[in-house]
Amino acid sequence: MQMPTFEPPRLGEPYLLTPGPLTTSYEVKEAMLRDWGSWDGDFRAMTAELRARLVAMLGEGSDAFTCVPMQGSGSFSVEAMLGTLVPKHGKALVLANGAYGQRAADSLRYAVRAVEVLDKGDYLPPRGPEIAAILAADPAITHVVAIHCETSSGILNPIPEIAQAVEAAGRALLIDSMSAFGAIPLPPTQIRYQAIVSSANKCIEGVPGFGFVLVRTDALEAAKGNAHSLALDLYAQWATMEKTGQWRYTPPTHAVAAFLTALHAHEAEGGVPARGARYAANRDTLVAGMRGLGFETLLEDRWLSPIITTFFCPADPAFAFQPFYDGMKARGFIIYPGKLTEVDSFRLGHIGRMDSAVMARVVQAVAETLADMGVTDATPPAAALEERNKQAEAA
Amino acid sequence: MQMPTFEPPRLGEPYLLTPGPLTTSYEVKEAMLRDWGSWDGDFRAMTAELRARLVAMLGEGSDAFTCVPMQGSGSFSVEAMLGTLVPKHGKALVLANGAYGQRAADSLRYAVRAVEVLDKGDYLPPRGPEIAAILAADPAITHVVAIHCETSSGILNPIPEIAQAVEAAGRALLIDSMSAFGAIPLPPTQIRYQAIVSSANKCIEGVPGFGFVLVRTDALEAAKGNAHSLALDLYAQWATMEKTGQWRYTPPTHAVAAFLTALHAHEAEGGVPARGARYAANRDTLVAGMRGLGFETLLEDRWLSPIITTFFCPADPAFAFQPFYDGMKARGFIIYPGKLTEVDSFRLGHIGRMDSAVMARVVQAVAETLADMGVTDATPPAAALEERNKQAEAA
Repeated sequence: MQMPTFEPPRLGEPYLLTPGPLTTSYEVKEAMLRDWGSWDGDFRAMTAELRARLVAMLGEGSDAFTCVPMQGSGSFSVEAMLGTLVPKHGKALVLANGAYGQRAADSLRYAVRAVEVLDKGDYLPPRGPEIAAILAADPAITHVVAIHCETSSGILNPIPEIAQAVEAAGRALLIDSMSAFGAIPLPPTQIRYQAIVSSANKCIEGVPGFGFVLVRTDALEAAKGNAHSLALDLYAQWATMEKTGQWRYTPPTHAVAAFLTALHAHEAEGGVPARGARYAANRDTLVAGMRGLGFETLLEDRWLSPIITTFFCPADPAFAFQPFYDGMKARGFIIYPGKLTEVDSFRLGHIGRMDSAVMARVVQAVAETLADMGVTDATPPAAALEERNKQAEAA
Repeated sequence: MQMPTFEPPRLGEPYLLTPGPLTTSYEVKEAMLRDWGSWDGDFRAMTAELRARLVAMLGEGSDAFTCVPMQGSGSFSVEAMLGTLVPKHGKALVLANGAYGQRAADSLRYAVRAVEVLDKGDYLPPRGPEIAAILAADPAITHVVAIHCETSSGILNPIPEIAQAVEAAGRALLIDSMSAFGAIPLPPTQIRYQAIVSSANKCIEGVPGFGFVLVRTDALEAAKGNAHSLALDLYAQWATMEKTGQWRYTPPTHAVAAFLTALHAHEAEGGVPARGARYAANRDTLVAGMRGLGFETLLEDRWLSPIITTFFCPADPAFAFQPFYDGMKARGFIIYPGKLTEVDSFRLGHIGRMDSAVMARVVQAVAETLADMGVTDATPPAAALEERNKQAEAA
């Protein structure tokens, strides 16, 4: 294991405090400086290494799984997983508390699958007992879809508890671990799931261009003929890769090369535990610093993820999102707007090629930007806090 | 206009004689050395420029069109075009003479659209009168799907003649111009079509990661609610881009940056006519050189495209594809296997960052590789030539 060096972006671009695309190392991008033939043996070997490394990242119990990379953004891989693994006459229960849960349900509706949504609103976690009750009441449900880290709010959903309820009811669990895989472990020996999905430009710190599904091989073999889309047929993609070593259609060769470099860096840093520890430290530095300035987080500490954190906008009338965004960008940081329906908020991601020292500079930049804007008090509106505290009790 | 310089691949990798991924300039790849926030104004401006430049490339009559880029390989964009523009109760006639026509038909079948296929076999062109006859006999057909350059054989299908038959019958034409757009003009004032589709890593000479559809805005507006897939809903992708300037889901930011550099180089070279002239010169040098060695092309000259050419494998028993491939790769050229069902063949692409001088070196490399293999005669089997000549009469 070696401590990574955190050279700032070499071309001087701002850090991306967004949960993918995110800031990658220069070495990752440098891997894109040549062209590969997608049919050639050199590239087939790269695909094989990528698949093997991702499966191995699951740890003990990984030998029951196979890896299927899929072109497009992460949402393409989510749809490929859902449309291929949920059969035409299956039914899915989607555990939603934000945009990504809603999107999963939409994907299933497009694919004409029966869907039920447990909608927990903007940021309440789905809990084991309520899931157990729904599954007991509806034997038609074959699959449960959970979002690992819902970046709409930044909440880390309680996957172990969800998985236990789903397994006890004898249903299959599909996990959208888009923004968490590679930083938060999902050991198959402790958490029972049929498949998880993530993408290149999240915690592995590659560039966007493809996603991947880690799926139990027997479940994928049984899913032949299910898919609603040729391009997003996960089974067909897998069958071709197993037979020829190639992607079915043209792969994003440069993004694949970048991802391999990112996978090597992930291993060198110490794998999933080390990556998760760095992101958690990033969060802790950021949250402590922001609270020191008077900001409040949407979520209480036990639901904060190491991926991204939502902060309430200050009540101070001198505050407005756009000048805040511009001020932060001028200081070298791209921030992310909030996605809550009820209160004004913004989000700061803490994944990507950066460490606690960078996060301390983020806090400094926030302080300077507020000062420039004439915001003297970062406290959120009383109504926002009241609502938050009420919800926290409910959770 | 400036003549491009054709620096060989700077990192010494082989030229890709494959029709995408292909050899790109170093400058195109260099544009990927920084990270962009997909939500940020800088990147939204890049997306807007990309869309405007692609529409403008159509020339006169382009103001009726809009551009919708789509994540994934070109086949993802083809499926998005077909699943969105052919309504659920529409019917498509697919003009097939190779793998890409068959794939388009498969996409439509997955999306549960009625499909009829005019299957011309490995390499015969669909002709106007036979299309007119099918359309006259079947009023249920709403759309005709044509492949511009079918890279399975390298044939350049007769689009003007096809478009005339489709327009005369009052149906809509959808063109898969994947490997031809940017090098072969499709002037909307002369050729009537509803939409065409291509991708980043073809004649514009970008890297793979996304495709794009150029579609009549009124036809796309009428296609709301048609799509069979959330991710591949071309209407929804367009509606979001029009409203926010952003891609609906995470875009391949680096591939987009590379593509903008490629678009600037395309314009600097002299646009579509200059790009097409260079590729045609590449083909002419290659075909003349290969014929000089005794090789024969699958197609007669009038059907040869400037994109890729199929050659018969020599009858000489000392010839085998794999050692030929290896010998060419060792000399700096990645070649492409044939896709014909009846006879042994291989393909050489002539698009990408290379000129006639490079093509002359390809011929030299072929001569050297044959000599190494002990192949003294590149003449194809008599049966292959006989079959070819019989087919040529039929066409």
